[in-house]
Amino acid sequence: MSATSLKEQISFIREVEKLKGVNRANRTVDGRYENSAEHSWHVALMALLLEEHANHSIDILKVVKLLLIHDLVEIDAGDTWLYETDQESKLDAETKAADRLFSLLPSDQKEEYFNLWNEFENRLSEEAKFASVIDGIQPLLNHLLTGNPEDGIIPVDKVWSRKKYISEYAPKLWGLVEELIEESKSKGLYE
Amino acid sequence: MSATSLKEQISFIREVEKLKGVNRANRTVDGRYENSAEHSWHVALMALLLEEHANHSIDILKVVKLLLIHDLVEIDAGDTWLYETDQESKLDAETKAADRLFSLLPSDQKEEYFNLWNEFENRLSEEAKFASVIDGIQPLLNHLLTGNPEDGIIPVDKVWSRKKYISEYAPKLWGLVEELIEESKSKGLYE
Repeated sequence: MSATSLKEQISFIREVEKLKGVNRANRTVDGRYENSAEHSWHVALMALLLEEHANHSIDILKVVKLLLIHDLVEIDAGDTWLYETDQESKLDAETKAADRLFSLLPSDQKEEYFNLWNEFENRLSEEAKFASVIDGIQPLLNHLLTGNPEDGIIPVDKVWSRKKYISEYAPKLWGLVEELIEESKSKGLYE
Repeated sequence: MSATSLKEQISFIREVEKLKGVNRANRTVDGRYENSAEHSWHVALMALLLEEHANHSIDILKVVKLLLIHDLVEIDAGDTWLYETDQESKLDAETKAADRLFSLLPSDQKEEYFNLWNEFENRLSEEAKFASVIDGIQPLLNHLLTGNPEDGIIPVDKVWSRKKYISEYAPKLWGLVEELIEESKSKGLYE
């Protein structure tokens, strides 16, 4: 029983190796594209450090779980840049991906992790909302640090509109978001 | 007070961006070197999935914290390959690195995270031991998946000797380790 579980778990762990090959739109300090695995590491660590700024009492272990798995569906569906217009067309592909990937796990974990992914995707809990806040702040920090106007300038009104949910979900972190957007604008990354 | 904390936390979060630029000896499925940030993501997720195989009841949140931060010191000290002979010379550099990095955080978090790093480094708890087991298994899985004899063949007795601690810390996972080592040997990665 346990041996079968382990075999299935290892098969999943080998499969998710591929997340290291899913590139995002942002870069790293050495100039290559950031991938979704290292992004997931960064947001999980950020959530642990910034828990005190959440608006509600939250189960931080669940937040970390949500963040460690939130991008796994990109292994099949690819990363969709936040500022692309069509955000909705990705839902079907991501649901199929979640179903395929989490089915590699033993059935109890399949159910748990599929539900966690769905909880994050649909912001179904305070934990999912806080996770989405962290997932929205990390690219602002990263882009300010590594972005270059030559890679493209983003309309600032799009940024405000895409990040506005943070003011509702985590008002204590909204001042930070405002600063990051203004600083990125000064750097010529948004206009 | 909270504003100052947030500023310090963000300064730390920006600094650790550099972990994405610390390369390891292993590779990814697309052939580049794996970095310590994506490795940290992978082991944190593995720990969540494999908790049932731990030998003791453990605080899994702590295990995940240990794994998310265990390699941060490499930002200053670099990654040391497990099979290099001189593992001890790195201790001084890593302690200095931990001190510099965690000092960026608010004082309560500085203490918490420095202690977590030290707990992992010196295997001071069941959580640290389980984290070290996961940290020892991930490279075996990854190397079997992405390794190439042309990158160098590792003496198999060195592998057995470096991984032996897993049989003591997590006997339920030792069978897996044996399989991975034998399979890697068949693939020509060890001899």
